[in-house]
Amino acid sequence: MSILVQKFGGSSVANPDRIKAVARRVVEAKDRGDDVVVVVSALGDTTDELIALARQISERPPKREMDMLLSTGEQVSIALLAMAIHELGRPVVSLTGAQGGIITDTTHTKAKILQINTERIERELSQGKIVIVAGFQGVTPGDDITTLGRGGSDTTAVALAAALKARECEIYTDVDGVYTADPRVVPSARKLADVSYGEMLEMASLGALVLQPRAVEFGAMYGVPIHVRSSFNREIGTYVREERVVEKDMVVIGVAHDVNVAKVGILDVPDRPGVASRIFSALAAEAINVDMIVQTTKEQQTTDMLFSVSRDDLARAKEIVEQVAAELGAKGVIVNDNVAKVSIVGAGMVSNPGVAARMFEALAKNDINIQVISTSEIKISCLVKAEDALKAVRAVHEAFGLSQPETQNAAL
Amino acid sequence: MSILVQKFGGSSVANPDRIKAVARRVVEAKDRGDDVVVVVSALGDTTDELIALARQISERPPKREMDMLLSTGEQVSIALLAMAIHELGRPVVSLTGAQGGIITDTTHTKAKILQINTERIERELSQGKIVIVAGFQGVTPGDDITTLGRGGSDTTAVALAAALKARECEIYTDVDGVYTADPRVVPSARKLADVSYGEMLEMASLGALVLQPRAVEFGAMYGVPIHVRSSFNREIGTYVREERVVEKDMVVIGVAHDVNVAKVGILDVPDRPGVASRIFSALAAEAINVDMIVQTTKEQQTTDMLFSVSRDDLARAKEIVEQVAAELGAKGVIVNDNVAKVSIVGAGMVSNPGVAARMFEALAKNDINIQVISTSEIKISCLVKAEDALKAVRAVHEAFGLSQPETQNAAL
Repeated sequence: MSILVQKFGGSSVANPDRIKAVARRVVEAKDRGDDVVVVVSALGDTTDELIALARQISERPPKREMDMLLSTGEQVSIALLAMAIHELGRPVVSLTGAQGGIITDTTHTKAKILQINTERIERELSQGKIVIVAGFQGVTPGDDITTLGRGGSDTTAVALAAALKARECEIYTDVDGVYTADPRVVPSARKLADVSYGEMLEMASLGALVLQPRAVEFGAMYGVPIHVRSSFNREIGTYVREERVVEKDMVVIGVAHDVNVAKVGILDVPDRPGVASRIFSALAAEAINVDMIVQTTKEQQTTDMLFSVSRDDLARAKEIVEQVAAELGAKGVIVNDNVAKVSIVGAGMVSNPGVAARMFEALAKNDINIQVISTSEIKISCLVKAEDALKAVRAVHEAFGLSQPETQNAAL
Repeated sequence: MSILVQKFGGSSVANPDRIKAVARRVVEAKDRGDDVVVVVSALGDTTDELIALARQISERPPKREMDMLLSTGEQVSIALLAMAIHELGRPVVSLTGAQGGIITDTTHTKAKILQINTERIERELSQGKIVIVAGFQGVTPGDDITTLGRGGSDTTAVALAAALKARECEIYTDVDGVYTADPRVVPSARKLADVSYGEMLEMASLGALVLQPRAVEFGAMYGVPIHVRSSFNREIGTYVREERVVEKDMVVIGVAHDVNVAKVGILDVPDRPGVASRIFSALAAEAINVDMIVQTTKEQQTTDMLFSVSRDDLARAKEIVEQVAAELGAKGVIVNDNVAKVSIVGAGMVSNPGVAARMFEALAKNDINIQVISTSEIKISCLVKAEDALKAVRAVHEAFGLSQPETQNAAL
């Protein structure tokens, strides 16, 4: 018997009617012959409401107790969904993260899954039951409840699919799949049939947040096919899997953009070993994520260091960097939050040298100035002025012919 | 080090301000030198809200899933109270029923506690922490979450006090203690300093619902002193313990009344063995609790059987009894929900034969007709017309001089 894991997010279970719709969808899958394991998030805005409640008690609640509190959100969902499935006459059982054997480390509020003990789930499946597991949560070896951080339900689902050797992990969401660009920005953006894990990782971390990066990493590590699709219709969505099946000739699969970004620069730092390490260790110590690091060394033995952070972190980053800059004898620090990041992603670009040039040309033709460029094997990112972001997305999407079905941009 | 168990009900933790007040109270107790274990119920009306949510999904939700759902209520409370205590700078940890080692049978929605594994609680206490345990819930040996039924938090608290050999179990509630009668009915009703477990059991099951009967049974079984007191002031409340210390000479300690009661009668049943068994087995099979059974056998070899049930059960009881009556060849069935039960309670009455007479005399003097009488060793109950109930309570309270402090009614 093959196992199918289905994950439904908070908007899919926001009210009793939607919960009943999810129940019907789960039962359809079961009736098609799979053993079905369902992962659900908390109802609608429950998590935010619980956080607000905690804030009325304490400005900085202990993280262990936050996890105790927040994990109730998914526990409510799994119970209600189990009731709805029972109402349709199917045997069903709901399990908390702990009951589902999801063992994590002790990093409360953003725990990492260490292992999954699948005995209980497998026993319930073998009795013909639909098994519902609370997303977003687990338990430490010492029996304390943990949560996996925002979007952790995706990770629960993919990790369970890996542990259970499921044939597929379906991620139900409020969009139809992964698009070549945000359809609100580019109306002609096209839904992709297939993307690779690497591409999805770049898309996800570049701001196309249909799927949590950690979930994609799990999928890649264990080779779990992930099917991102809408909970509001029956259409096939986008498959995230090792090898693109349909669109393997596409060089660039999509354009991502992220406006929650700010630029930080340290100018004229004396160029000697250990400078980068000093700067970025200080930021890491404060848990500030740094993206797009660019260093340019000038003639006169000094260097400019530019990087981007999320706007929420800018104030703290500036403080830290100013202090480090003074210690290092740098000339100055600049910060700018009037920027946005526009990126193209595609596993094929590694063997296609003309890709970067085509992107820069598209931006230039539209009078868009590039402030910072950063590349990896499968993506190219440019920082541009914030007000140019959407124009840039449209220009680049057009330049790579992404509105046309398949292989159109293959013959670069 | 002595252990104190404190239990706070839903109204005591109804909002963030009250939770903070409870936190201060807990910290005061800790600072006085006890190891403190706190049991809390769900916030205010949470349980009712969760039940309403379940009803939107299913008319008859599976009980296992109801427990999964309802147990989140207390989990929210323990997390918030832990945050509030942490905010006061004291080490604290919250534990679900399962984490607290509260093992129950598998009777979902009204599980019975089988045993308590106190290792985790004792370990946390030994580290100087205040330990908060979710009331009302436990876990089966097979790792399924259960709830103990309405008011189960009282039972959790007293059972924990027993298992931990606590010096006392404080039950904080919205009343000051146990009164000689409902103060809303008898303004001169007096708070009792002491009642015995047996008396408290009769008072509780007779409608003075300050303490769950099962909690009292636990207290009696393990000799746990229970201190019922108000969460809104610092006054000493009422002690429920083996031997009344202060008021041991009181013959009658209080007058209880219950208006949620209805009378059922089966008239002229052929008087032969097995009749009572047939009637009450049929009711028990439907989980209908029967109270005050009275049988009177007449000259002509038939018998009248009268008993009381709660008004909620009357419709179902009538149906069942009419069917059984037909099978037994009884002449008829009468039902009447225009009745109320008035009772006096006191461990001393067993050796004071004049008590019943004094009660009946008080009722007669006030033109109150008695419909059914039922007695145990420590209580006498009378069914009267519903509209006579409060007058009856006042008359009986007066007749036994219960407004006067102590020993006044001793010299009967």
